[in-house]
Amino acid sequence: MVPPTRSPRQGGRDPHIVAIGGGTGLSTLLRGLKAYTSAISAIVTVADDGGSSGRLRRELGVLPPGDLRQCIAALAEDEALMTQLFQYRFPEGGLEGHSFGNLFIAAMAAITGSFEKGILESGHILAIKGRILPATLQDVTLYADLREERQGRLSRVAGESQIPKANGTIERVYLQPDRVRAYPVAVQAILDADLIVIGPGSLYTSILPNLLIEDITQAVRASRAFKVYVCNVATQRGETAGYTVYDHVAALVRHVGPGLVNAVLANENMSLPLPAQSGAEFVPLGPPLGEGLQLVTADLVDPARPWRHDSARLAQALMRLCAPIAEQRKERSHAE
Amino acid sequence: MVPPTRSPRQGGRDPHIVAIGGGTGLSTLLRGLKAYTSAISAIVTVADDGGSSGRLRRELGVLPPGDLRQCIAALAEDEALMTQLFQYRFPEGGLEGHSFGNLFIAAMAAITGSFEKGILESGHILAIKGRILPATLQDVTLYADLREERQGRLSRVAGESQIPKANGTIERVYLQPDRVRAYPVAVQAILDADLIVIGPGSLYTSILPNLLIEDITQAVRASRAFKVYVCNVATQRGETAGYTVYDHVAALVRHVGPGLVNAVLANENMSLPLPAQSGAEFVPLGPPLGEGLQLVTADLVDPARPWRHDSARLAQALMRLCAPIAEQRKERSHAE
Repeated sequence: MVPPTRSPRQGGRDPHIVAIGGGTGLSTLLRGLKAYTSAISAIVTVADDGGSSGRLRRELGVLPPGDLRQCIAALAEDEALMTQLFQYRFPEGGLEGHSFGNLFIAAMAAITGSFEKGILESGHILAIKGRILPATLQDVTLYADLREERQGRLSRVAGESQIPKANGTIERVYLQPDRVRAYPVAVQAILDADLIVIGPGSLYTSILPNLLIEDITQAVRASRAFKVYVCNVATQRGETAGYTVYDHVAALVRHVGPGLVNAVLANENMSLPLPAQSGAEFVPLGPPLGEGLQLVTADLVDPARPWRHDSARLAQALMRLCAPIAEQRKERSHAE
Repeated sequence: MVPPTRSPRQGGRDPHIVAIGGGTGLSTLLRGLKAYTSAISAIVTVADDGGSSGRLRRELGVLPPGDLRQCIAALAEDEALMTQLFQYRFPEGGLEGHSFGNLFIAAMAAITGSFEKGILESGHILAIKGRILPATLQDVTLYADLREERQGRLSRVAGESQIPKANGTIERVYLQPDRVRAYPVAVQAILDADLIVIGPGSLYTSILPNLLIEDITQAVRASRAFKVYVCNVATQRGETAGYTVYDHVAALVRHVGPGLVNAVLANENMSLPLPAQSGAEFVPLGPPLGEGLQLVTADLVDPARPWRHDSARLAQALMRLCAPIAEQRKERSHAE
């Protein structure tokens, strides 16, 4: 008799990778990594966008962040079809204006009881590799203290989408409430990981909202995984204008302290022209990062959109970087 | 470096099983089989339900047969959640009355260009084991010739759902148009199968609509798979009232000729009471089946609903039945 098969989704021998971030950067990363492993956990915050309209939208569940749809598409076994389905809008019958993706997430939120649980369970419904884990199941709002350019005054802005539009330089971001509990499954994924990848993505509005949850950062520190921060290819207006790689790392250290990662992966190909109107510039290396922090550079640029990472190049560079560590782990576990 | 993993959905070493049928019987079978293999192809006809209303529904794609939803749920990795999601109805916003399952299938039909292709591609979107394959991509309508009980006259009825309600004994079912092409992927699945299971399910309205497609029956005959017909546990009013196992097999032979299957699997436990109002009775064995057709009996009944098969018992009996053949195949392929 044929024995029952192990669920193919568990991917026992694949390296366990945790990706922390959000936005296009995270989906680019996931798209590349899924060629190497099915054991991917993407950790995202769905920080409330401030004010009643953001809250209302979330409660209705009809306008989930595009982030989430991007992650689902990026991890999909058939990305083109999943993207098409999620973008599909019903032409008639009172369904106008609702994309299928929004209806899906609204239905999942309704049957699981919360938006966050709906996200979490979507991996049990859709043919995707890996899991999407909310960093927390609690309602959080992201705030930023900005230094105004002319008068140098500090002002406060609420909401992930509002922060980059505000006039000023970000000094600090923080969450309200400030002591939210991490989602335990996300913490466990971090502790079990072989590789933790932080970024790429918007530094203040995608990456730090995850790391500002103390349990998440503590778990990253406690994990035996190899930990890499992937610096963005280009600066982002309203967030990281004028930043070097050093400045990105310094902002991380300023918010969560030193020693979080083992290595920084940065792009070295700055030869292609960037669209002038975006205000984006290639991120130069800047001052040395200091001891204990390995800097690795590679050509990571997507030739078609040189302000972004190329999925395949990024995944390849990460795999190359962690291969010796994975080898050591394997030997150690054989010896045990 | 870690090599890219093979898609876990291909299930290289799992036995390839093709299930032909429809309705509750098919979903019961699939639910049991998915514990043994991920390489399941469920072949279904979505025969048009006759008349303009059936056609209209299909064109709008908003009222797909419950069959299909049942199959998807039965093959789901998380059946309870998938069932809940597919049954979910939006409470507001013009979405009332649409179950999520119907919206899903309508969206898939819209983006793939046809209802049948939508079914087919749903396996690339949802976390299900195996595939659901339409027997044909063409529009077909099922007709039946019925012998009226009192005057013995022959009458013709159109539509899968109408046939069991009509007054009379089914003499013959047929498709219009009568020479439809099978869907090539379904034919290939049959040719590649290790085991082909026909039934359980409504003999005239679920099973025969598939077998009346000549390419399908020819492929079953040509396939080197072990082929089993699973006879229903109980008779169905309007279809098989008073039938023995022999009568079921005789109806198959009358429609598609002899020699289609190697074995017939029938239930032997007739000890439980059946609900009187259903008109269902346990199917007795009846006359011997004749040479070249192995009859296997086992207790296949679901104790909670004794007019139906139990998923686990049915799958176990099938695996036991085909184990020696699978063993032979393995040895042969090692020798090659």
